[in-house]
Amino acid sequence: MEIREFQRAIERIYLEKDTARGREGSFRWFVEEVGELARAMRRGEREQMAEEFADVFAWLSTLASICGVELAEAVGKYAGGCPKCGQAPCECQ
Amino acid sequence: MEIREFQRAIERIYLEKDTARGREGSFRWFVEEVGELARAMRRGEREQMAEEFADVFAWLSTLASICGVELAEAVGKYAGGCPKCGQAPCECQ
Repeated sequence: MEIREFQRAIERIYLEKDTARGREGSFRWFVEEVGELARAMRRGEREQMAEEFADVFAWLSTLASICGVELAEAVGKYAGGCPKCGQAPCECQ
Repeated sequence: MEIREFQRAIERIYLEKDTARGREGSFRWFVEEVGELARAMRRGEREQMAEEFADVFAWLSTLASICGVELAEAVGKYAGGCPKCGQAPCECQ
């Protein structure tokens, strides 16, 4: 799936509700999901980790939409390797 | 860009270094970037927000790789609308 397509899909499901909730409230939800990812990583169950990675990605996507950021464009900074050293693999210290 | 393609690109740049750092250290880096996103959202500068959204996404991607999770597969849970109510837009309370 395209990054852009995922962002649109999440918008269709949640944008109206998340826009009404606003940036602060939606950021708290995002952080809550980051906490669930932390727990899943500590426990190390792969299926649960996959669920939480998807949820954090979904919340990141909805936050980007609320902020008027197109994720697919934003990640262009990684197209030429590490944005700092310009290498792949990264050669930063 | 495809989600899968982005995860591969981030692996080419960072996976060796991040795997050596391990899950705990890489998770701390991820959280550091989440903090930078929080600051950018508070300031509301769109270009800076775009940078930080991309960085959080990159760290989420590398964490997924370290944990053996394929993001493109994990997000399949959103393919049929909200995973909880099955609707798009979400009709959960």
